[in-house]
Amino acid sequence: MLIKNMSVEECRGALARIGFGRLACAQNNQPYIVPIYFAYEPDHLYGFSTVGQKIEWMRSNPRVCVEVDEVISHFQWKSVIIAGRYEELPDTSEYSSERLQAQTLLEKRYLWWQTAYTANQLRRRKKRAPPLFYCIHIDHMTGRSAVPDSVELRVPL
Amino acid sequence: MLIKNMSVEECRGALARIGFGRLACAQNNQPYIVPIYFAYEPDHLYGFSTVGQKIEWMRSNPRVCVEVDEVISHFQWKSVIIAGRYEELPDTSEYSSERLQAQTLLEKRYLWWQTAYTANQLRRRKKRAPPLFYCIHIDHMTGRSAVPDSVELRVPL
Repeated sequence: MLIKNMSVEECRGALARIGFGRLACAQNNQPYIVPIYFAYEPDHLYGFSTVGQKIEWMRSNPRVCVEVDEVISHFQWKSVIIAGRYEELPDTSEYSSERLQAQTLLEKRYLWWQTAYTANQLRRRKKRAPPLFYCIHIDHMTGRSAVPDSVELRVPL
Repeated sequence: MLIKNMSVEECRGALARIGFGRLACAQNNQPYIVPIYFAYEPDHLYGFSTVGQKIEWMRSNPRVCVEVDEVISHFQWKSVIIAGRYEELPDTSEYSSERLQAQTLLEKRYLWWQTAYTANQLRRRKKRAPPLFYCIHIDHMTGRSAVPDSVELRVPL
């Protein structure tokens, strides 16, 4: 397998195509990871969630990391790692245009609402949490991709 | 889709079977995620790596999170989240039996060495980093699984 660094354009292409990844936040230097669906546009990811541990942690510490990968085999994969900052998009007039943009981009991805909705189902007995939109501002992004070399191409996968 | 909390036994079964996930570490409350291969035994994950950002960060802050998932469709998935502590297994007599145990467990998983080896390839021009074994001690573990409900079973996936 040969690994190379991905260009910014290759990273952007992967983010736009995949739309699914893992987000890490941290509190008191304890990290926490959750899978997320997102919509990408240059320098931003938009997401949708209900209030839970990750939202509470990101409210207190907006520094996050998002990892997005596409694994075809052990020898053929892409992985993009983003360092970014969380910003909540509250339901106020100040944020109305950005919320609309987030919602429009997210609705283009089928079933994007399922994860947040069903997480909400689990919490209903206690208290029904209001849904919210958020934005991850991308501060830094790197990517690596791997392709099989000639020996590995002869190995059954 | 119906979501339920997984039992400890179900979490253990998923970790033993999947052997691949994402590890987050943090420095100055900035999280960082990387994909990892691991071998599971109760209360521990064993991994193999070369020295890089994740190892340097875990040496300075051993608090980590590992997320392991298995996604069959939007409606059918499992996700296990672990909060744990990193411990390096140096090549000394004190750690020899634990290193051997880690190596034996990891060798049972085919191609486990590929990721670390090829990451090393990228660094060769600067300095060849020595390989190392590590252990993640599991402090806390939760899991959720989803199954389609009757309406979703009629939706083509």
